[in-house]
Amino acid sequence: MLPEFRDIEKAARRIEGFAVRTPVLESPKLNALAGGRILIKAECLQRTGSFKFRGAWNMISKLDAKKAKGGVVAYSSGNHAQGVAAAAQIKGLPALIVMPADTPLIKQENTKSYGAEVVTYDRATQSREEIAERFMKQRHAVMVPPFEHADIIAGQGTAGLELAEEASARGVVLDDVLVCCSGGGLTAGVALAMEALQPNARVHSVEPAGFDDYARSLKSGTIERNSRPSGSICDALMSPSPGDMTFAINRRLLGAGLAVTDAEAADAVRFAFEVLKIVLEPGGAVALAAVLSGRIETKGKAIGVIASGGNCDPGLYARILNREI
Amino acid sequence: MLPEFRDIEKAARRIEGFAVRTPVLESPKLNALAGGRILIKAECLQRTGSFKFRGAWNMISKLDAKKAKGGVVAYSSGNHAQGVAAAAQIKGLPALIVMPADTPLIKQENTKSYGAEVVTYDRATQSREEIAERFMKQRHAVMVPPFEHADIIAGQGTAGLELAEEASARGVVLDDVLVCCSGGGLTAGVALAMEALQPNARVHSVEPAGFDDYARSLKSGTIERNSRPSGSICDALMSPSPGDMTFAINRRLLGAGLAVTDAEAADAVRFAFEVLKIVLEPGGAVALAAVLSGRIETKGKAIGVIASGGNCDPGLYARILNREI
Repeated sequence: MLPEFRDIEKAARRIEGFAVRTPVLESPKLNALAGGRILIKAECLQRTGSFKFRGAWNMISKLDAKKAKGGVVAYSSGNHAQGVAAAAQIKGLPALIVMPADTPLIKQENTKSYGAEVVTYDRATQSREEIAERFMKQRHAVMVPPFEHADIIAGQGTAGLELAEEASARGVVLDDVLVCCSGGGLTAGVALAMEALQPNARVHSVEPAGFDDYARSLKSGTIERNSRPSGSICDALMSPSPGDMTFAINRRLLGAGLAVTDAEAADAVRFAFEVLKIVLEPGGAVALAAVLSGRIETKGKAIGVIASGGNCDPGLYARILNREI
Repeated sequence: MLPEFRDIEKAARRIEGFAVRTPVLESPKLNALAGGRILIKAECLQRTGSFKFRGAWNMISKLDAKKAKGGVVAYSSGNHAQGVAAAAQIKGLPALIVMPADTPLIKQENTKSYGAEVVTYDRATQSREEIAERFMKQRHAVMVPPFEHADIIAGQGTAGLELAEEASARGVVLDDVLVCCSGGGLTAGVALAMEALQPNARVHSVEPAGFDDYARSLKSGTIERNSRPSGSICDALMSPSPGDMTFAINRRLLGAGLAVTDAEAADAVRFAFEVLKIVLEPGGAVALAAVLSGRIETKGKAIGVIASGGNCDPGLYARILNREI
């Protein structure tokens, strides 16, 4: 069953008091640069440093603690891992997370800090889905998928609901909304929220160049895959292909997909540091990068940007600030 | 004339729509670490990257544009410079800012980006006040002092008013409020706001160790000076001594002053990066550093922290992330 807007409204009530209603930032400098109004939903300020807690809590908080005493299992490059671990900790359930061995250390450490057990795998040779399913069966645990679940999509959609409400409160009719996109769960949730609350807005997925499976899928009308499993500084956006559920929603609602280079993502990370004063990881900065690099017309437009996460390894961030990337 | 709380209320109305009502952040991780509730007023997200725009706009917006056509003059290590430059630009007035030659480049560049003229001086051998006064007379310009003015103190106090209101909205009675302190304008404004709105709260100045002129002045009851003009990574907090006006307010309202080392300030910058996902400069992180380093009892307490600014040179920030500082 695909989620609908009313599921996002229910999710919004469920996450209240647990998730942060993150601020929508607006910068006079960025607006002047764009010649329009850019509304930035700062999801890096969300609990666990990315939007992922929204979906994780929306799904996990509904579990029957007795039936789910085997806990939860998830596979994730890092942000979903932290969201699931924190949600399970609040619910009092054990969590086991399968993470790529090359995931930023800060994401592994943070996941452990929420009490979760972390198992790593080799992104090039092993299947994370298989490993996670094996643990799920062994432990009688509940799988919390990164995007292919109605509760996850609806939970992520609350970020879009809040952005739409805040835009309306400021009297802004959004022309476009740019969403950092990997498996498409956040994008689908945001698109459903915009359809209901800001129907004028065209939602666009933004991906790293060379990993634009979503943009190509939207264009061809069938699910396309990335040719490589990794190789961008945007480690959060490395899902190999759109999910069936997310694609069913997104193909109906999305405009053309956009892609930015690693250099453009790094520029956006620096802009967020210098001007906005928020910490973004490269994968959380690609939507902002699309604005800064002129991938979309901004003149005279009102554009929503989801800045989806800020869990960047300090070493990588330092190299970006030093313009080594 | 010393400002009163009603001047802060007037300032709040004056800055509305120009300054950002910055979010008050709360981190489950920080709360657990502190054993209490820590409410962080993220003034790094303020227009120009620090609280300084509040006071600057409160004073400059009131000027008669015809009488003030000679523009405004200010001296500043950097954050006040940017606040004054941005406020003057909105008002359509020319601005000349006198800045130390060793001030972070980002602060000089940002000040120029708001259309201001920047004149540098040698912090060790020249008097910034004299240079600024000379320009003021030459140009028939209005001096916008960094803290010794009722409009400036009242403007900065709006940060305290918003923090107090937000704490009350969350049902929190603040026990202590920690304020990054240099000349004492922000501290005085925050103390006036807390006296009116959160009278239980004890306000404390926080300074870099070795530059704790305010703490020593509060203790001795007379205005004390720092022995050195510079030598801390907290470049924003290098005022040589309390102002007469700010001290008159602060000696009546403040608890004991606190001080933190550069290493503790750097730890707080890293914590803000890793956990809070906001960019703080060292001087803007000293109040948070006082919490993290245990300079104040946090167990079972509700503590307000002003995170006053985020205009950090990228190179310095990278060194802090790499633990070279």
